[in-house]
Amino acid sequence: MKVRGKNYRAVWMKGRDVVVINQPLLPHRFGLLRLKNHRETAEAIRTMIIRGAGTIGATAAYGMAQAFLEGADLARAYRTLNETRPTAVDLKHALDLVRACPDAVAAVAEAERITVEYCERGAQIAKVGLPLIKSGTRVLTHCNAGWLALVDWGSAPAPIYLAHRLGRKVFVWVDETRPRCQGASLTSWEFMQEGVPHKIIADNAAGFFMRRGEVDLCIVGADRIAANGDVANKVGTYEKAVLAHANRIPFYVAAPTSTIDRHCRTGDHIPIEERDEDEVHYMAGVRISPRGARAANPAFDVTPARYITGIITARGILKPTELRQLWKR
Amino acid sequence: MKVRGKNYRAVWMKGRDVVVINQPLLPHRFGLLRLKNHRETAEAIRTMIIRGAGTIGATAAYGMAQAFLEGADLARAYRTLNETRPTAVDLKHALDLVRACPDAVAAVAEAERITVEYCERGAQIAKVGLPLIKSGTRVLTHCNAGWLALVDWGSAPAPIYLAHRLGRKVFVWVDETRPRCQGASLTSWEFMQEGVPHKIIADNAAGFFMRRGEVDLCIVGADRIAANGDVANKVGTYEKAVLAHANRIPFYVAAPTSTIDRHCRTGDHIPIEERDEDEVHYMAGVRISPRGARAANPAFDVTPARYITGIITARGILKPTELRQLWKR
Repeated sequence: MKVRGKNYRAVWMKGRDVVVINQPLLPHRFGLLRLKNHRETAEAIRTMIIRGAGTIGATAAYGMAQAFLEGADLARAYRTLNETRPTAVDLKHALDLVRACPDAVAAVAEAERITVEYCERGAQIAKVGLPLIKSGTRVLTHCNAGWLALVDWGSAPAPIYLAHRLGRKVFVWVDETRPRCQGASLTSWEFMQEGVPHKIIADNAAGFFMRRGEVDLCIVGADRIAANGDVANKVGTYEKAVLAHANRIPFYVAAPTSTIDRHCRTGDHIPIEERDEDEVHYMAGVRISPRGARAANPAFDVTPARYITGIITARGILKPTELRQLWKR
Repeated sequence: MKVRGKNYRAVWMKGRDVVVINQPLLPHRFGLLRLKNHRETAEAIRTMIIRGAGTIGATAAYGMAQAFLEGADLARAYRTLNETRPTAVDLKHALDLVRACPDAVAAVAEAERITVEYCERGAQIAKVGLPLIKSGTRVLTHCNAGWLALVDWGSAPAPIYLAHRLGRKVFVWVDETRPRCQGASLTSWEFMQEGVPHKIIADNAAGFFMRRGEVDLCIVGADRIAANGDVANKVGTYEKAVLAHANRIPFYVAAPTSTIDRHCRTGDHIPIEERDEDEVHYMAGVRISPRGARAANPAFDVTPARYITGIITARGILKPTELRQLWKR
């Protein structure tokens, strides 16, 4: 996608180097980072220079290819890369594919194939979701599920980007997404670069604009989708889904099919990460709450399938109850 | 209410001075400000050293009494004080009462009477709402409607304070309340001083804890209540009310009867203040969003009466549909 009018992906390979967009600098500075060997690449994943399941998978694949090029101990390089983010499923899957290659040339080709596949998934989600976005549609989104997280296009914003490029007049309400504010920083930055008209709002104001009839459609991403269609996503997603339902606004989830966990029966079986309470106490490094006060900080929540109008995947828009078709075929 | 174990009100008179708690210093520093004449008192209201309808009314009443003591031009002093916060109804009402006094002694007495009346309203709300808070009750509240805003006791937290003082085990979820974070700073600070167990949460997490069955009751304040029971309050209140309804959690509004506007037929007739978008762009003085990005910042929202279980007033807990009884008697 575009940055200052030039096309970028979140990660790519140049010679023996892996090049990534340095995401912690955003939204105020745009910079690239050249990772000269698989150890530097592993470190960039671990320290969240890059983030998002797809971008993590692609970057790890390139890192494994670097290990081949360096003539490094492959088993050790695999471990180093795999231990960076223990919960990311895409990471291990990508590493397994590259490690199985016979030589360095094949490894580099495989890493590139994996990365292109992520880009294509985003592009397919864009096409599948496109009919939902008409000229004049006002979309509300939560958190960042954009191209920074999926190498290119992204999931939730992908149909918005495509509609905008096709000249449709789309407008987006961007939830700031406390506590980490990925909406206000990353999603807004992506939209600024593509020229998509949008306004950032406090998460508290989403209901206000829904009730005023100023939201036609909600699209969010997903961290994990259970077999029954329950969706785990950034905390606050459940609130917006209930509000959309109360205001009769369609609520869509966009995600690559790799996000669907067929072995997870319902949302109740998805473990919810509790993050450090300082994410609530501090804003931009300044403590907002009294010293000694306590906070609770669940990072995700589960939206029951009944609040979800449809799940936008590369294989079509499915009702939550239709997910089982994907693995019965 | 208690600060470091000592009883305070948000404002009082000492000799010819008006003394207020310097609210912008909270939660990290506690300091008093002595206002030596009615002009300094007016300036403290204008610059929001003190805030909240009741505290504004009491402070203005004292300021008008100061004008009497100074032998100032009363018409001019009235104007100076009245122009500080044009939308606060309590302000004008309090000024009218003090201005009608025959002399300085009567004016000081009237200002004190007005202030004590605010304190008593809070204490009455505490008693009326007390039966809702049993030992073990977990309450969720939004924004700050505490004693800093109503001289003493407050509205929404008043029953919580009383239950806690009576030894009932109450726990409170405190919404941080973006964008100005009055929950994380002021409400949490009040609870710290009184020793009320609580945790601050991102506004996005309220639905998460409701769905997990960890919220028994919601109590919020109100900025204006329409005759049909619709309630205007800090933005985000509507979201929490809809979520409480979806999770079958009782949702109460606590407010002095002066907040009920019998001339306002429904919530649709309440004007909603749009505040500066920089409240969304900046956190603790640091810009979170990209330069050039736009934001929208409605300060309040309207919660339809059907989502409100009851309105806790000094005259009892009323159903939203029962408000009309108040002026038919």
